[in-house]
Amino acid sequence: MVYRLGIKTNRVKEMINITLAIQNVVRKSKVVSGTVLVFIPHTTASIIITENTDPDLLKDILWKYSELVPRNTTFDHLEGNSDSHILSTLVGNSVQLIIAKNSLWLGPWQSIYYVELDGPKGREIWVKITADSTTEDIPDEAIFIE
Amino acid sequence: MVYRLGIKTNRVKEMINITLAIQNVVRKSKVVSGTVLVFIPHTTASIIITENTDPDLLKDILWKYSELVPRNTTFDHLEGNSDSHILSTLVGNSVQLIIAKNSLWLGPWQSIYYVELDGPKGREIWVKITADSTTEDIPDEAIFIE
Amino acid sequence: MVYRLGIKTNRVKEMINITLAIQNVVRKSKVVSGTVLVFIPHTTASIIITENTDPDLLKDILWKYSELVPRNTTFDHLEGNSDSHILSTLVGNSVQLIIAKNSLWLGPWQSIYYVELDGPKGREIWVKITADSTTEDIPDEAIFIE
Repeated sequence: MVYRLGIKTNRVKEMINITLAIQNVVRKSKVVSGTVLVFIPHTTASIIITENTDPDLLKDILWKYSELVPRNTTFDHLEGNSDSHILSTLVGNSVQLIIAKNSLWLGPWQSIYYVELDGPKGREIWVKITADSTTEDIPDEAIFIE
Repeated sequence: MVYRLGIKTNRVKEMINITLAIQNVVRKSKVVSGTVLVFIPHTTASIIITENTDPDLLKDILWKYSELVPRNTTFDHLEGNSDSHILSTLVGNSVQLIIAKNSLWLGPWQSIYYVELDGPKGREIWVKITADSTTEDIPDEAIFIE
Repeated sequence: MVYRLGIKTNRVKEMINITLAIQNVVRKSKVVSGTVLVFIPHTTASIIITENTDPDLLKDILWKYSELVPRNTTFDHLEGNSDSHILSTLVGNSVQLIIAKNSLWLGPWQSIYYVELDGPKGREIWVKITADSTTEDIPDEAIFIE
């Protein structure tokens, strides 16, 4: 199943928590176990997984991105948004997640964020859900490897 | 299905548009809906998705990569290409894409680029296509979430 | 199949080769051909693929990560580990690999590394294996595209 989600951003650089929207798509798909690919069909936006407890962390992330790849560098690309394109390739434009029990399977601190790098814009997020051929469970405990 | 593509690079750092080559593999596979994993089996090369309209953008991307991780830093690794290894881990070595209607499903500005970070070299690109158990379509419109 | 692996890290920043552990999981799954998603359920850790021949390279990688995103920057996030969170989003928290002949299919120089960015900690690695509906082989040779 492929779902297309629409989103409206309000600033040049902005992070939007889309965990609930992706979880809702997983529920709606009725897929019990499988994987989900969340794909950004743009070249000046990204998607990441990070913590959702402190708004200051989101500010730190966007600040550091802009410090690593500042907009006001003398780039050749005429549109003037080379920084957005470069950051999009470094941060990445998709995440892949596990579905079990018809639910997204994330670590306790993990949330999914759409990262606007050249807004404000109307954007899309594509969600591709692939079902397993059999229903499978998550183990209750980890097996230590070292 | 797994396909192995060969590619010859000509410079130390270089971007090569491989969208058409990947699209051809998808067509050849006859898979109507599914996903494709494009995987670089090297540790000094990467793969990204970015815009294909302005050659200056490609120059800006490679210039910024080299500015963030310059070759002439005093690294310990004897081969002298630690910059290429480090960039390869930051930029990433695979992309995952949606297949629908026996075609790659990309955003209007998106092209797939092989990124050489330590050429010139003969390289490979591995393409793994996974078919869905049912044929599925892409919705005509996005559903807004915010 | 989903497997949960446990790992104990010993330093603030550290790389641990987990190739053999992932290979063992693939063997145990008895999946002949398919894909494997290796997913880190943490927000201050990452996973990468890089070379395993020179320990100095691993030092260079961790040194450069810390140089790009130093810990002692004046961040707002109170916990004081914004650098770990930011690096985790840049380096990435999952890799996707090809399975053929009931084995991980990696390039000759490639190893999989868990990257601790805020240790020492007890951590998990989630391994999701998706089997193909048919058994498929890897071609013996690459087809040149350019």
